[in-house]
Amino acid sequence: MSSTVTTYDLITLGETMWRLSPPGHERLEAARSLDIQVGGAESNVAIALARLGKTVAWWSRLPDSPLGRHIANTLRTYQVDVSGVRWSEGRLGTYYVEFGSAPRSTQVIYDRADSTASQMQPDDFPWSQLRQARWLHLTGITPALSVSCLQTTRRALLEARRAELVVSFDLNYRARLWSMEQARPVFDELASHASLVITAARDARHLLGYDESPTILARTLHERWNGATVVLTTGDEGAFAYDGSNFYDVPAFPVHIVDRIGAGDAFDAGLICALLDGKSLAEALRQGTALAALKMTVPGDIALVSRDELDRLLQNKTTGVLR
Amino acid sequence: MSSTVTTYDLITLGETMWRLSPPGHERLEAARSLDIQVGGAESNVAIALARLGKTVAWWSRLPDSPLGRHIANTLRTYQVDVSGVRWSEGRLGTYYVEFGSAPRSTQVIYDRADSTASQMQPDDFPWSQLRQARWLHLTGITPALSVSCLQTTRRALLEARRAELVVSFDLNYRARLWSMEQARPVFDELASHASLVITAARDARHLLGYDESPTILARTLHERWNGATVVLTTGDEGAFAYDGSNFYDVPAFPVHIVDRIGAGDAFDAGLICALLDGKSLAEALRQGTALAALKMTVPGDIALVSRDELDRLLQNKTTGVLR
Amino acid sequence: MSSTVTTYDLITLGETMWRLSPPGHERLEAARSLDIQVGGAESNVAIALARLGKTVAWWSRLPDSPLGRHIANTLRTYQVDVSGVRWSEGRLGTYYVEFGSAPRSTQVIYDRADSTASQMQPDDFPWSQLRQARWLHLTGITPALSVSCLQTTRRALLEARRAELVVSFDLNYRARLWSMEQARPVFDELASHASLVITAARDARHLLGYDESPTILARTLHERWNGATVVLTTGDEGAFAYDGSNFYDVPAFPVHIVDRIGAGDAFDAGLICALLDGKSLAEALRQGTALAALKMTVPGDIALVSRDELDRLLQNKTTGVLR
Amino acid sequence: MSSTVTTYDLITLGETMWRLSPPGHERLEAARSLDIQVGGAESNVAIALARLGKTVAWWSRLPDSPLGRHIANTLRTYQVDVSGVRWSEGRLGTYYVEFGSAPRSTQVIYDRADSTASQMQPDDFPWSQLRQARWLHLTGITPALSVSCLQTTRRALLEARRAELVVSFDLNYRARLWSMEQARPVFDELASHASLVITAARDARHLLGYDESPTILARTLHERWNGATVVLTTGDEGAFAYDGSNFYDVPAFPVHIVDRIGAGDAFDAGLICALLDGKSLAEALRQGTALAALKMTVPGDIALVSRDELDRLLQNKTTGVLR
Amino acid sequence: MSSTVTTYDLITLGETMWRLSPPGHERLEAARSLDIQVGGAESNVAIALARLGKTVAWWSRLPDSPLGRHIANTLRTYQVDVSGVRWSEGRLGTYYVEFGSAPRSTQVIYDRADSTASQMQPDDFPWSQLRQARWLHLTGITPALSVSCLQTTRRALLEARRAELVVSFDLNYRARLWSMEQARPVFDELASHASLVITAARDARHLLGYDESPTILARTLHERWNGATVVLTTGDEGAFAYDGSNFYDVPAFPVHIVDRIGAGDAFDAGLICALLDGKSLAEALRQGTALAALKMTVPGDIALVSRDELDRLLQNKTTGVLR
Amino acid sequence: MSSTVTTYDLITLGETMWRLSPPGHERLEAARSLDIQVGGAESNVAIALARLGKTVAWWSRLPDSPLGRHIANTLRTYQVDVSGVRWSEGRLGTYYVEFGSAPRSTQVIYDRADSTASQMQPDDFPWSQLRQARWLHLTGITPALSVSCLQTTRRALLEARRAELVVSFDLNYRARLWSMEQARPVFDELASHASLVITAARDARHLLGYDESPTILARTLHERWNGATVVLTTGDEGAFAYDGSNFYDVPAFPVHIVDRIGAGDAFDAGLICALLDGKSLAEALRQGTALAALKMTVPGDIALVSRDELDRLLQNKTTGVLR
Repeated sequence: MSSTVTTYDLITLGETMWRLSPPGHERLEAARSLDIQVGGAESNVAIALARLGKTVAWWSRLPDSPLGRHIANTLRTYQVDVSGVRWSEGRLGTYYVEFGSAPRSTQVIYDRADSTASQMQPDDFPWSQLRQARWLHLTGITPALSVSCLQTTRRALLEARRAELVVSFDLNYRARLWSMEQARPVFDELASHASLVITAARDARHLLGYDESPTILARTLHERWNGATVVLTTGDEGAFAYDGSNFYDVPAFPVHIVDRIGAGDAFDAGLICALLDGKSLAEALRQGTALAALKMTVPGDIALVSRDELDRLLQNKTTGVLR
Repeated sequence: MSSTVTTYDLITLGETMWRLSPPGHERLEAARSLDIQVGGAESNVAIALARLGKTVAWWSRLPDSPLGRHIANTLRTYQVDVSGVRWSEGRLGTYYVEFGSAPRSTQVIYDRADSTASQMQPDDFPWSQLRQARWLHLTGITPALSVSCLQTTRRALLEARRAELVVSFDLNYRARLWSMEQARPVFDELASHASLVITAARDARHLLGYDESPTILARTLHERWNGATVVLTTGDEGAFAYDGSNFYDVPAFPVHIVDRIGAGDAFDAGLICALLDGKSLAEALRQGTALAALKMTVPGDIALVSRDELDRLLQNKTTGVLR
Repeated sequence: MSSTVTTYDLITLGETMWRLSPPGHERLEAARSLDIQVGGAESNVAIALARLGKTVAWWSRLPDSPLGRHIANTLRTYQVDVSGVRWSEGRLGTYYVEFGSAPRSTQVIYDRADSTASQMQPDDFPWSQLRQARWLHLTGITPALSVSCLQTTRRALLEARRAELVVSFDLNYRARLWSMEQARPVFDELASHASLVITAARDARHLLGYDESPTILARTLHERWNGATVVLTTGDEGAFAYDGSNFYDVPAFPVHIVDRIGAGDAFDAGLICALLDGKSLAEALRQGTALAALKMTVPGDIALVSRDELDRLLQNKTTGVLR
Repeated sequence: MSSTVTTYDLITLGETMWRLSPPGHERLEAARSLDIQVGGAESNVAIALARLGKTVAWWSRLPDSPLGRHIANTLRTYQVDVSGVRWSEGRLGTYYVEFGSAPRSTQVIYDRADSTASQMQPDDFPWSQLRQARWLHLTGITPALSVSCLQTTRRALLEARRAELVVSFDLNYRARLWSMEQARPVFDELASHASLVITAARDARHLLGYDESPTILARTLHERWNGATVVLTTGDEGAFAYDGSNFYDVPAFPVHIVDRIGAGDAFDAGLICALLDGKSLAEALRQGTALAALKMTVPGDIALVSRDELDRLLQNKTTGVLR
Repeated sequence: MSSTVTTYDLITLGETMWRLSPPGHERLEAARSLDIQVGGAESNVAIALARLGKTVAWWSRLPDSPLGRHIANTLRTYQVDVSGVRWSEGRLGTYYVEFGSAPRSTQVIYDRADSTASQMQPDDFPWSQLRQARWLHLTGITPALSVSCLQTTRRALLEARRAELVVSFDLNYRARLWSMEQARPVFDELASHASLVITAARDARHLLGYDESPTILARTLHERWNGATVVLTTGDEGAFAYDGSNFYDVPAFPVHIVDRIGAGDAFDAGLICALLDGKSLAEALRQGTALAALKMTVPGDIALVSRDELDRLLQNKTTGVLR
Repeated sequence: MSSTVTTYDLITLGETMWRLSPPGHERLEAARSLDIQVGGAESNVAIALARLGKTVAWWSRLPDSPLGRHIANTLRTYQVDVSGVRWSEGRLGTYYVEFGSAPRSTQVIYDRADSTASQMQPDDFPWSQLRQARWLHLTGITPALSVSCLQTTRRALLEARRAELVVSFDLNYRARLWSMEQARPVFDELASHASLVITAARDARHLLGYDESPTILARTLHERWNGATVVLTTGDEGAFAYDGSNFYDVPAFPVHIVDRIGAGDAFDAGLICALLDGKSLAEALRQGTALAALKMTVPGDIALVSRDELDRLLQNKTTGVLR
């Protein structure tokens, strides 16, 4: 009963899961309850961008169950368009997080095999809507989920090229999903079609197989990936970038960490938002690190941060208590 | 960056608040924490209708603060269009609920005076959108909030008449907001412009000033209010109605009550949804009582119920455990 | 470093899962946290028997992860021997429960496909230990999980026959795992090798395809299943039985229900415990209904009940407050 | 630095403990957390009376520790004078409650041996303050705690006689503290010095050793105890009384029970309050049953009820929701 | 029924509110529950002093509702005399706190307009009791609440002068209540009647309009305010003071912060308590910083600290674990 | 019905209690709930060793109540053999912990007097099982509990000598149980029968009565205690040792502390486990400090740590997030 023509700043696609974690520093082995958070690399980016004022759509497959609806509810809460979601039978991918404390590591246990999202197909989505969009964001998680997910990612790149969209690609290498040997050719293929590629510096080293300075890593990848701007994130989300002309090196903001998970996605969102707004790469990198810092102060994968808070941090205006 | 033309099944306007209540049967006087629920007679109707598949917009004024955004987030979660909301400085109306247990009453303490919503003005809303809508739903709470709220309600009725919408009006008499002496002329004025008027039978008796059978009450109000279909709800949301031709008497569904608050709004939504779908008044009343029953099994003011669950109850298919 | 020869009263095998449910009557679609309980038809029986003083082993496959260890921890807590468990890579089966309130149904959503347990193989277990046992208990859930699980069930029956064990079999028909058309031949095959078969009366009707009195159902199944004693459970765990000679009809104990899930397993445990102790079938049925009643007063799938509490109920000695 | 002369409506003395119970219907054996409530028969009476507007003092020994201060804090919260409390080294008596659900009993496990309160001595308290008081309330728990507690109770009775106070005595027989054989002579001694004696009818039967009608029980005890008015409470705190002239029989109010513990103490408070206000015994009994009913709707031992709520119930004015 | 003549060490008056905050670092915009704490600058001082053994009264207006009673209960719990409180119709002021983590600020959102406390009147309080008191403590929050609150503050100063009390005044500048332009003349008027004035150094700079060393700020304010002793608090509650003769500079104690809110009020209480005890200004400043440090280790606005803990810190005796 | 001959790596005996603490940094004086943890110096060692793969038995007396069963359940959960426990009437020892934050100390309040464990007798335990064991671990807490506990400790040493077990003894000096004057002769007696003695360096100084370097302390104690290997733990569980030939000095691992209680017991377990495995004392000390570090990252007294985590830390392989 509603006829809508929306223009999107950005469209993204991928899997979103329930993140289940025991409270505080409790161990999974002795847990009695689990807190639910919603997390997915692409939807984290989508929500963060929507909160900064962008019009964003997220496409995926979700199970037609209370769990699937929980995911869609959460994305709608934060103004992400989920009208392109395919609903089908199946299970919701989940992952368990047990929060550590140095020297005990935080542990992530995936239970995402055969999820509904992993069954997404190239024909699932309204590709023509890309023509009303400016930007497509993809990650290296989706192609790791299944063959049909890889095919869907390829289709997305093809359609984006036809629609002349800017394409960003975050490698998001997950060692528990595939080995670097399996991932490398896929990363190379996909990164070569993107104009902006983001990856953790440690994964860049792993991919290239040698330990070099960010300068050399970035230049090498820039050339390897067909001239893409390459952004390398480092510990606690400082960043380094090379756009073919200049090198940029942006330090991380100091943070008292509440929840580190999702910081990389927040970085992507801060960076892309600035570029969508026509800012320089240097400014965009700084905005990325700022949003990542703020995300780390919030429980959950999502950067529940406002534009105003981001601006205040970029202007170094934060204080202890506002009253 | 988005251009949208939406056709609405229903538009409603009113105040939505935070409902704050201590857990279980704890007393406010000794409370240490409060659970947050979102509640407002009109937004409760809006959400319930949206969950049943209708396209619904809710208009209001909200404070431009985390609390106001919390309200908008919640409505978006359940697919209610909040693009017509006015954002301004101010406070969010709240109300405290202390759950009793017979013979101890449940207590509601309003803290809604001077809320942002109570400052809504006749010019706040995009009245022209009513022309893309089929139905306008109002309640007797809004005109009790302030003079400008009463004026806004009048404006809404005027615009609805121009746009030839169906108008429903639920008296929702609140003794803590105004006396029946104050409310009576306003109810009479507004109900006379509605084609469907809903009220608790006990408030109908209070308004008319005498204790009569539902048959006489309904006929009297039908005549008093310009021929409106009159629906009287009775204990635990059974219902009685008179449409000028026939009397209908629908019993309540038996319920093991979890949270009674919001049942009346769920009744309205079930009833209106059926009428929007072209069902008979008898069917609509039964659907209203069914949705009210299901609402009472869910914590919070909102009828977090699916179309499927409603249909199963209407077909008497519910069972103890589905597995 | 330990050499042990244990004699078991009973050995059972099956899948045990995490049961995840939002607190109180909250809806999964809006949940923020999940309570963890441990549940599996066979391990529920095992724990209840161990609490009544029996020596019990439970065999299964568990994932070698904190989640799998959580399951083994829980069984050890209540003195069930888990030394026969196979540990392997894989996921833990889970299921979600959303507690309803009349007329809203309690909903169970299984997420158990491809669990580690479903990959159990006929050679997984130390079958020779059956020779130190008196009783084998199986359910109709295991053969529904996978082909290898069906084969394992068959192997168990074969080994039990060799070791001359008493075999009990609870159909535990789960419509969300398979249709009655799929289940019927398997039930017939397995039940024919058991000396005690337990099923809900409504599933007996479904299996036989007609609605008859318990007397006729029980006699028919007794003949169909090679002379097994047939026990039919009815609403809220009253029971009916036929042992080839006599019919028994035992009413359920009145219960103020806290959590109904697991009552059938508690019934099995109470029944089997009495038979292990040499009591009559009539006494055993009454003990089964008593344990089922007590289980329903405890949150979670497990009958956290003591022998003393069971005896007091059987002697009608319970009171409101013991102090 | 403060000089105060207070006139007390009532003074009472006894032990107050932490009541520790797992949430909901969880079992102690599997508990992870305990809710803290404050409870003691005499302080429950004191608080309920203070809430109804009486000036009340409670005397006891408390450990000079955070736990002891927690008790005093709680009594002060509800306006009970604790200036007569003796502070000394020692432990706080505690008791564990596991809430049952029929047919599972609620269990109380005392851990009060050698508590600081059990070490109270006859010289601990400012007896001269009794001269500024109107009423002394004692229970049969205190003399069961220790020899010095028995001596202190005797001293209290002696001082009350000197000061010409009204004395009420609630037997509060606790089978886990002493046998009826041990308690009987003490009850007889103490009850003979009181003008009002309250006891559960079942304990009266136990004391007398035969099962008779309330009429005969009350008359027998009235004579045995030197002409005291005898009040017998029955299931769910209905009451029966004999004052030497008339018999009174007051039914319990219907209640949807939240927490039954402390209902008897609330009954005492409602009864005594009415007598302090000069009402008739019949009115007092009804007020006792009303306050007991309201107490049972509130979690914890304490009757967190207001005078207004009590009056509304006595006038049959309660409703489902007040708004 | 009670006649009391109390001598107070200190009397204070002001508004006390419910402080509502989501658990941990959750955001208000996504909150599901709120923890309740009780906070008000003056009552925080009162409670801290009462815990250190002083006899203290707090005057205010409170709503005659469970919320108002909650406030009075809390003050009584910690031995503050609330007999001077006026009870009337109205709302309880509340404020919301969202705890940040660097670089995200902690946010305070006031919802205190038109609170019952803001309607306090000059004739509300038993001024004659000031004659039994030694000290009056006021803050700059009360005069910001309303005209009648300003008048009440003036009246308090007048009455204190008549009764020859020591008067302390903490500016407590709140930018969300009024601008410094509005506040400056009021601060000047009130501070000129106090013998001890306390303010954050940053507010002193704001008031004076220039950035100077503490020495110059303090001397300037000493002269401007009629010779008052001026205390300036600095980051994390270190302190600087000038009494017309000497300058004092006291560092803050190192703290692992749990909850910073209320530290300034604890400083005031520690300082005033020492002065009441006849200690030197230097000792008093050190005690103020010590109590502020301990307060920051406790959740909530109130310095739930004992005299013993304070003394141990002043003697540098604290250890990690006491057992 | 089960016949078992188990060979134990280690047997220990002692008291285990409920540790009750309010959540977070809340104060006991204002607490509403308590978290339950299970703690006892010897059972902490037993559980940690069992988790590292050792076969361990723990002997004690436990009350035959839900509380006692809770303790046994917990030990069984983590694979500690509790078949040697004596069950009798009595109370469970408890202790309260209030977590501080610098400069506020964490406070431990024992409520363990007259516990069931304190009534253990020399004849309570199956001493002949020591002959199937390799190691006996004792602490200086048990002899402080009662005369019969001291006698039981002596008996254990005697039996261990007969069975030629390795004996370790941790002084675990508790100032709230006895003075050093009382403890010193007992420590000397018991330590002289052990081949490995562990103590906090500060308690060694207290025992010897002078402040010396670890080197001198260890050598002195080595000689005083009949040639035992002496291990001194220092702040945050670094360690120093002397075995008659060499001195070892092992630094603590850096830790972000979650819960410090139980770290010393984890140290003991790590140390003993390595020695049981035939590693050098230097390796054992490092493993002790590593396990202590990991324990401090886990809430509760128990080192809920896996062999794999311990090995990773010993190999310096821990990372922030494993995914």
